[in-house]
Amino acid sequence: MFAEIITIGDELLIGQVVDTNSAWMAQQLNKIGIRVKQITSVSDSAAHIYKALSEAKERAEVVFITGGLGPTKDDITKSVLLDFFGGELQINEAALKNVHAIFEKYKRPVLPANHQQAAVPSSCEVILNLQGTAPGMYFFKDNCHYYSMPGVPFEMMAMMENSIIPKLTQTLNLPSVLHETILTAGIGESFLADLIETEEDQLPEHIKLAYLPKLGQVRLRLSAFGFNEQELKAELLIHKNKIVDKIGDYVIALSDINIEEVILNTLLAQNKTLSTAESCTGGYIGHLLTSIAGSSRVYQGGGITYSYELKESVLGVKSDTLSQTGAVSEETVTEMVLGALKAFNSDYAIACSGIAGPDGGTPEKPVGTVWIAVACKNKVVAKKYLFGNKRMQNIERTAVSAFYMLYQLMKDN
Amino acid sequence: MFAEIITIGDELLIGQVVDTNSAWMAQQLNKIGIRVKQITSVSDSAAHIYKALSEAKERAEVVFITGGLGPTKDDITKSVLLDFFGGELQINEAALKNVHAIFEKYKRPVLPANHQQAAVPSSCEVILNLQGTAPGMYFFKDNCHYYSMPGVPFEMMAMMENSIIPKLTQTLNLPSVLHETILTAGIGESFLADLIETEEDQLPEHIKLAYLPKLGQVRLRLSAFGFNEQELKAELLIHKNKIVDKIGDYVIALSDINIEEVILNTLLAQNKTLSTAESCTGGYIGHLLTSIAGSSRVYQGGGITYSYELKESVLGVKSDTLSQTGAVSEETVTEMVLGALKAFNSDYAIACSGIAGPDGGTPEKPVGTVWIAVACKNKVVAKKYLFGNKRMQNIERTAVSAFYMLYQLMKDN
Repeated sequence: MFAEIITIGDELLIGQVVDTNSAWMAQQLNKIGIRVKQITSVSDSAAHIYKALSEAKERAEVVFITGGLGPTKDDITKSVLLDFFGGELQINEAALKNVHAIFEKYKRPVLPANHQQAAVPSSCEVILNLQGTAPGMYFFKDNCHYYSMPGVPFEMMAMMENSIIPKLTQTLNLPSVLHETILTAGIGESFLADLIETEEDQLPEHIKLAYLPKLGQVRLRLSAFGFNEQELKAELLIHKNKIVDKIGDYVIALSDINIEEVILNTLLAQNKTLSTAESCTGGYIGHLLTSIAGSSRVYQGGGITYSYELKESVLGVKSDTLSQTGAVSEETVTEMVLGALKAFNSDYAIACSGIAGPDGGTPEKPVGTVWIAVACKNKVVAKKYLFGNKRMQNIERTAVSAFYMLYQLMKDN
Repeated sequence: MFAEIITIGDELLIGQVVDTNSAWMAQQLNKIGIRVKQITSVSDSAAHIYKALSEAKERAEVVFITGGLGPTKDDITKSVLLDFFGGELQINEAALKNVHAIFEKYKRPVLPANHQQAAVPSSCEVILNLQGTAPGMYFFKDNCHYYSMPGVPFEMMAMMENSIIPKLTQTLNLPSVLHETILTAGIGESFLADLIETEEDQLPEHIKLAYLPKLGQVRLRLSAFGFNEQELKAELLIHKNKIVDKIGDYVIALSDINIEEVILNTLLAQNKTLSTAESCTGGYIGHLLTSIAGSSRVYQGGGITYSYELKESVLGVKSDTLSQTGAVSEETVTEMVLGALKAFNSDYAIACSGIAGPDGGTPEKPVGTVWIAVACKNKVVAKKYLFGNKRMQNIERTAVSAFYMLYQLMKDN
């Protein structure tokens, strides 16, 4: 079964927004056995959208459309859909109720423009948007299913997860698709590929292996397609185990989770606590930990000690250490991590200090130089890294490296 | 002048890779007055690529193609180009020299597969790829210019910057494209649209207005196209000012920056400092601030006081306050923000405490309840918000709301 994705909006075509919706949708669709044939981004132009809709059904049986459903003048998708599928605009009561509910919640008056958002072509079936005011729409024409959704990622995602994916799996005769994920860290994509070349070559046509690299972590996803789910599951596990046997040392999880989740789960099971002392990451490590629901049972919090002053007052780093070795040094990051254990009274702690860039580098400590330390009551490990010159990347790499160092420290205990 | 971008590769269609090349190319092209009409991602299938090439020239005068030029079997772009533009494959000496140079650099033997990368259709003009082994190719057919580049971002970028963009600006008669952005906060998209309806209706054909909403902030982007840059600039500013006059109270910046940048710039100009005391945002506010280069000149750091214990030990929140009013209360968040001013010795401070969810809600304090406080030496403002039930969204909304509250406090001073 083939699908096509059409994303609508001038912001995509002037490069102001990167189209992340398509990749996310493609991932979800692949999981249920629907292959994406083409992704097309078009401008907010009626003729252009109309043409894209007609061309899509030549290639696909399901078409997903995002964007152009806002209340403003530049959002014209709905009128094009009306034109393409026929019928007339009429207020959908459920959608209108939803608009009112949302505005009530934020104590805002409903404007005519918002009222109009509940108007949909009579030729469609409404998909409620509990996250926003623009309803989703389902159409069927020339044996092709069309789903129109807002471009706001979390609104589109909620619609896909709660309404569209379930509907697709129920109404279409799709093969079973089973996935098994192996999370690895501390090894690059090409080296992994080298290690498991034989196992990869042995995979049958209906089992695909995808490498999903993400700054220092690589997820291996095995996807099996077929109509006998039990056989498929057994077969999939055999291949998964063969791979795990080859790369055991680098495997940190056998399910689709992040390294920070692995850490929180392990510490929770051991009834241990964690705190952080961040300089160059400026709160990003805490953010990653607290993005996970329930993290408060393990993560106590920490300090964003960006200035020298706070490194001293909050973590008790010695003023001499800072003046003699600088903020980006083994001595400072070690005092930071020990200070965190003490000040935040936790069993484990992470600390980092580095030059995120783009400025602030020196010949001895170029941009991208980062010191990371992890510690528990009886052990401290500090390590120096040299990343690149991109600020955001340095922040992300520091966080992932810190998590991996902590993971190894926990494993040694 | 219209362009079209075609990105080739299965990895895009299974969502393994987000297509960031297109957005980057679109930005560069807009800068030189070329408008991207459509972005199309297609699979590594000859028929599909061929069709995309033929359809593109119906819509555009310049077509940019990336991907599918690697040495492996699944990279078939070149053979399709040969098929589409005619001619025969012949080794290009300059390209071959480049391949050898690159392999020498890495002390690797040149394999036949690499040697073949220097073979290009006789119908093309080679664009040297100094970053990699796959040469770029330029074709001209049916009054349409085609540029084929590798999909590796930095190889593509170097080719665009060093060869293609200069060639386009020299050989094509391109209009100027000017953009003006207005950043607003504290007002929704539809309310803005209502306020500036007249001004929007008055916009000429060659000036477009786009609404770019992002959790509590809406960017208004005016784009003008024309050949007389000076006139265009003047005309654009007239319309920009008309809009600003109507929505003045909500305008927080007249350029394309975020509210956190506005805050950092303003505080830097006043030589003031900022600190944070985060509970439910768990470091996200600090992360947003420190994602901006140079933020250390204003942002001192802060505390991620996730636990009761840290709220007391780091910020000096009274144990009675926590036990009597709870962590999510006006009293607690007020003591947190005052504690931050003191403990982190800053001129301004932000504090927040809330229930991010999905669990932890009560009838009186449901998930999404957040208290935010901002303060300076002589003033404290605390406000209660009720967001939704999505953890990440609650974290993001809290951050944006906190920045807006701080912005208003700064304005009042």
